[in-house]
Amino acid sequence: MKKIGKQTFSIKDNVFIRDTYTIVGKKEGQGPLGNKFHMVVEDDLWGEDSWEKSELKFQKTAVEKLMEANQLKKNQIDLMISGDLLNQITSSSFAARAIQLPYIGVYGACSTMALTMGLGSLLIDGGFAENIICVTSSHFCSAERQYRLPLEMGGQRHMSAQWTVTGSAAVWLSKNGSGGPRIKNVTFGKITDLGVKDANNMGAAMAPAAYDTLNQHIKDTGIDYDLIVTGDLGTVGKGIVNKMFNEDNNSIEKKYDDCGTIIFDIEKQDVHSGGSGCGCSATVFGAFLYRKLLDGDIKKLLFTSTGALHSPTATLQGESIPGIAHSVGIEI
Amino acid sequence: MKKIGKQTFSIKDNVFIRDTYTIVGKKEGQGPLGNKFHMVVEDDLWGEDSWEKSELKFQKTAVEKLMEANQLKKNQIDLMISGDLLNQITSSSFAARAIQLPYIGVYGACSTMALTMGLGSLLIDGGFAENIICVTSSHFCSAERQYRLPLEMGGQRHMSAQWTVTGSAAVWLSKNGSGGPRIKNVTFGKITDLGVKDANNMGAAMAPAAYDTLNQHIKDTGIDYDLIVTGDLGTVGKGIVNKMFNEDNNSIEKKYDDCGTIIFDIEKQDVHSGGSGCGCSATVFGAFLYRKLLDGDIKKLLFTSTGALHSPTATLQGESIPGIAHSVGIEI
Repeated sequence: MKKIGKQTFSIKDNVFIRDTYTIVGKKEGQGPLGNKFHMVVEDDLWGEDSWEKSELKFQKTAVEKLMEANQLKKNQIDLMISGDLLNQITSSSFAARAIQLPYIGVYGACSTMALTMGLGSLLIDGGFAENIICVTSSHFCSAERQYRLPLEMGGQRHMSAQWTVTGSAAVWLSKNGSGGPRIKNVTFGKITDLGVKDANNMGAAMAPAAYDTLNQHIKDTGIDYDLIVTGDLGTVGKGIVNKMFNEDNNSIEKKYDDCGTIIFDIEKQDVHSGGSGCGCSATVFGAFLYRKLLDGDIKKLLFTSTGALHSPTATLQGESIPGIAHSVGIEI
Repeated sequence: MKKIGKQTFSIKDNVFIRDTYTIVGKKEGQGPLGNKFHMVVEDDLWGEDSWEKSELKFQKTAVEKLMEANQLKKNQIDLMISGDLLNQITSSSFAARAIQLPYIGVYGACSTMALTMGLGSLLIDGGFAENIICVTSSHFCSAERQYRLPLEMGGQRHMSAQWTVTGSAAVWLSKNGSGGPRIKNVTFGKITDLGVKDANNMGAAMAPAAYDTLNQHIKDTGIDYDLIVTGDLGTVGKGIVNKMFNEDNNSIEKKYDDCGTIIFDIEKQDVHSGGSGCGCSATVFGAFLYRKLLDGDIKKLLFTSTGALHSPTATLQGESIPGIAHSVGIEI
C-alpha cells in the first residue's frame, strides 16, 4: 500500500507538474501578483452575456492555452479533472463539453485545485494515465449572486467576508519529465465543522479543516516543508490556523502563508479578509508558487486548498458550514 | 499503462465488490424490485424536517448499515467517494461530516454511482487503498423543487419526464476477497450534447452520451457482455440508444436494459418515462444487478450510469443540457 501514516498517499513514481496556465480578472491583475499571471482579462463579462458564461470561458481558455503552449494534443491527454463553485459545476461541465476530453467532475468548493491535483497524481502513479489536466475556476460576480446577495443591491460587505477571485488555472500533470516540481504526498481531508453558520465568515468555517489536514499530513510524512500555504482562509482563517498550531506548541507561523492574503493587497484593494473561491488557490499556485519552485526559491511546498462546503439551502434550514481541506506535498 | 484502446482503464489486480446496502422510499418499495432492497422507508421525510435532511439520512444510513453488516471499522476504510444531485452535493458533504472518513466529493449527476465505483477501483488497483466506500443518493422531493417546480404546485408532468428515485446505495470496494464480482474495466466518458434543452426530457439529453461511452468501452475491451445496463435513461432514452446501435448494424437490444425502466412498473406506477436520479442506477445495481452477479445469472455486466449535467441557471440562459456516461465492466 502506497500509504504513509494514517491518511496520506505516497507517490512512488514521479508525477511531474509540467506547466500551468492562469487567467485572472482586472482586480486580481491589479494585485501584488498582477504581472505574474499568464493573462489578465479587463472585462468581467469577457464579451459574453452572463457572468456564468464568462467563467466557463476563463476555464476553457486556460485549458486551451495550456495545451497550445505545450503543443499538447487531445489524444495525448488521458483525463481532465475539474470542478468549480457554481451549481452543478457548470463552468467545468461546459468547459469539458468544449474541450472533449474524458472528464471527471469533482466538487470540493475552494479546495478543488488540491483535490484535482491530488486525484490526478494518484491516477498517474497508479499507472492509468500519462497526462492529466486539472482545472478549476471562480468568478466574483457569479459566486456572489449564487451564494450571497445580488450585486445590484450594492450591499455592504462584512469585514470577515472574502472576495471571490475571478480567475482560472489549469495544471498539466505528467508521468514524463526530468527535474521540475513533483507531487510526492497527498492527503485527502475529512469534514470538520465546528458550527460556523455565517456565509460571510468562510475563513472561520474552513480553518479547523485546514488545521486538521495540515496536522495529519505533517504527522504522516514527517517532512519539514519550506513553505506551507493554505488557500483560501483569508486573514481571519489564517489567524485561527496559526492559533491552533501555537496552542499545540507547534508553531508554523514563520513558514506559513495563505493564498487569500497573497493574491490581493488587503489594505489597498478593499477586499476585507482576503481572496477566496476555487480560482484563488489555483491561480496563486499556477502563477506564483509553481514559479517559486521552478526558480528554486523553495524546495518543499505543502499546498493545501480549503473548501467551505456551503449550501445556501442548507444554511436556510439552520445547518452550519462543513469545511474540508486537501493537501498536496510538492518537491523539486 | 493500464489502458486499453482509446479511453478505457484496465484493472490489473482484483478489485472486489464486497457488498452493497440499499435504502429506498415507499414508491420504489412498491415497484418490481420492492423485496430486493435492504430497507424501505415509508415516510419521505424520515422523521426529519426537510427533504434535503431526509436525503442525507438515506445516504448516511446506507453507509453505516453497510459498515455494520460487514463489521467494518472506520480505520479500515481509506476513502469515501460520494456525490449527489443537490446543489453543492450537500447530502454527500453532510453524510461525510457524520461518517468522518477521508472524503472525495464528485459531481456527475445521475452518472455518479459508476463514477465513484470507477474512481474507487482505480485507486485500489493503483495501490493506494485497501477499502473504499462509494455512495450516492437522490430524493424525488428535493430534486423536483431544485431542478423543476415546487411540488406544492401540483403541476402536470410531461410524458417524457422521469421520476427521481428516492434512495441511496453504498458499495464496498476492496482489494481483499475471494471470488465474487470484480471490477475489470472502467471508461470515463466525454461530454456529449446534441442540443436538448428540455429539463423534462433528460433521457434524450443523456442517450447520445450513453451511446458514446458504451460504444467506446465495447470497442476498447472487445468484451461480449451478458448484460449491458444504462441508468437512467428511461423509456425515451433507452429507445434512442437502441436506435443508435441499430443504425450502426450493431444491435445490443437483446442484452440491454436500463435502470430507469427496471426500478418502476412503468404502466402501473404512473412514472411516465421511468426512474432517474443518482439513486436510481445506484439502488438497482446494489439490490438487483449485484445479486444477479452473485447468483451467477450473469457473468459479465457492463454497468453504465448516465448523467444530465443540467443546471437550471444555464437553462434559463439558453444553454442545452450536457450529457455524460461512465462505464464500469464487472465480471465474476
